[in-house]
Amino acid sequence: MSKPYVVGIDIGGTNTVFGIVDTRGTVLASSSIKTLKHSDFNDYVDELHTELTKLMADTGTTGQIHGIGIGAPNANFFTGMVEECANLPWPTPLPLARIVSDKFGIPVAITNDANAAAIGEMTYGAARGIKDFIMITLGTGVGSGIVINGQLVYGHDGFAGELGHVISKRTNGRLCGCGRTGCLETYCSATGVARTAREFLEIRNEPSLLRNIPIDEITSKDVYDAAMAGDAIAKEIFDYTGNILGEALADFTVFSAPEAFIIFGGLAKSGELLFRPMRNSMEKNMLSIWKGKVRILPSELKEADAAVLGASALGWEAK
Amino acid sequence: MSKPYVVGIDIGGTNTVFGIVDTRGTVLASSSIKTLKHSDFNDYVDELHTELTKLMADTGTTGQIHGIGIGAPNANFFTGMVEECANLPWPTPLPLARIVSDKFGIPVAITNDANAAAIGEMTYGAARGIKDFIMITLGTGVGSGIVINGQLVYGHDGFAGELGHVISKRTNGRLCGCGRTGCLETYCSATGVARTAREFLEIRNEPSLLRNIPIDEITSKDVYDAAMAGDAIAKEIFDYTGNILGEALADFTVFSAPEAFIIFGGLAKSGELLFRPMRNSMEKNMLSIWKGKVRILPSELKEADAAVLGASALGWEAK
Repeated sequence: MSKPYVVGIDIGGTNTVFGIVDTRGTVLASSSIKTLKHSDFNDYVDELHTELTKLMADTGTTGQIHGIGIGAPNANFFTGMVEECANLPWPTPLPLARIVSDKFGIPVAITNDANAAAIGEMTYGAARGIKDFIMITLGTGVGSGIVINGQLVYGHDGFAGELGHVISKRTNGRLCGCGRTGCLETYCSATGVARTAREFLEIRNEPSLLRNIPIDEITSKDVYDAAMAGDAIAKEIFDYTGNILGEALADFTVFSAPEAFIIFGGLAKSGELLFRPMRNSMEKNMLSIWKGKVRILPSELKEADAAVLGASALGWEAK
Repeated sequence: MSKPYVVGIDIGGTNTVFGIVDTRGTVLASSSIKTLKHSDFNDYVDELHTELTKLMADTGTTGQIHGIGIGAPNANFFTGMVEECANLPWPTPLPLARIVSDKFGIPVAITNDANAAAIGEMTYGAARGIKDFIMITLGTGVGSGIVINGQLVYGHDGFAGELGHVISKRTNGRLCGCGRTGCLETYCSATGVARTAREFLEIRNEPSLLRNIPIDEITSKDVYDAAMAGDAIAKEIFDYTGNILGEALADFTVFSAPEAFIIFGGLAKSGELLFRPMRNSMEKNMLSIWKGKVRILPSELKEADAAVLGASALGWEAK
């Protein structure tokens, strides 16, 4: 009988969360360690090994793990390497898959965090039964995982699906961390929403609850809270964000004609504040053959488990 | 032994070209009929049947045809239907695959013309051995066929790959035949080049060879001829076109990370006049991880055979 459990590991800039998952997507147990604690990657893997070995013993799954799936920034499914990455404390390129696999004696597959989320959504979440969809993650940046005909799109080099870096504004666009200007993620990430708030507050004179917060400390959560309290400028910030996102979704549709977009990440929790203008803008900008045909769905993965579940689903593919 | 020949049929607005092709991509014989001659589709299929039956007899391939592949505007691979189409004289939706298959007693597969070209290029042309590429066809419009991991992308409804309709200009964009404004094809098709010529000549005062032609009759071929004769405005028109196309190719790369773009169609014959600004713009606008990694290649299909070869390659998939 094949081994009935997988391990999912989500390596974030601050925490590394990991758990043991069964075939139905139940997280048997999970735990975490601090990503930044070890500047030597081998020390980090030692701690991960100690903690995961305990977790396996506690759950009676020792020797029963089919594979380990890892989601990490800039992780490449094809090469098993983490390429240059500003958010992790170790030298790159880093042969992540090989080192972890050697340490545990278990097959390892890795991919970037947005792709892991897409695999999780397809296996356990809102995209079950949907063969063509695009996962859009709205966090510090804008990430994406593209699924076509039931398969994740990796591209010829493993880096496909960087939809946060399509150009939304070709003139006077905002400077992006990638060095170019006008990228989608400079407008539609959590940080993009905070930037829009600062721009709106500086240009305009109307009163706003957001004026009670030092302008450089405003977060997307503050904008959400103000909008929920009825603040007009805060609502407009969501309209502006949703409008740009909807334009982008209409453009993505002419590429792969997905059945649905799945929206994931902190900003996705803004609900109709964001979804209404996003949906309206997508429909308004949509090529006629797709009007009314493409759904926008919120992620259905439980937030606490999402990262681990997504990574663990990849564990089934490890070999 | 399985049947060693296929038929390729390319249904264009003016002519329908068809031929018999072997496993190596040699066109044994080809012929054509006038698409517009019959307003009743059954009469059209009767003539097609008569002519193709002759062609099979002449080449000794009667009874040896594995399948028929058809490329036609707005033809849907999944449904076998041609959906609404302004360029064909018959009522739509038209069950093209079923009618042709019934008439010939041979399996038929259909797809749109750009997808057929992509399949042809993958099977016989510049994309042999390339598993991830995007075919861009520059003709009256801008079409595309997207291949990911060796498979053509049809999307959830069979209409994926309408890259001529991504929005290149979000403000003051040109009106497109699709009813929206700013679509890529309003700038980078043959008609787009002619529109650019008219705009440039109206706004500016410099002399130009193009001023010898009535402004409403200028074609992309005229612009090409003038540029080759050293005309400065004509060269600028190609720079402008290539620049917009390169911006679009950089955006397409973040989606599927193709190894190459294959450029096909009338305008592709402009060579370096178009390819140089297109390549420069793509590199300038490219996200850094792909700089210098994505090739732009001209189609390698012989022009006279391209449409038939592309459609015929689909014939191997017919069942």
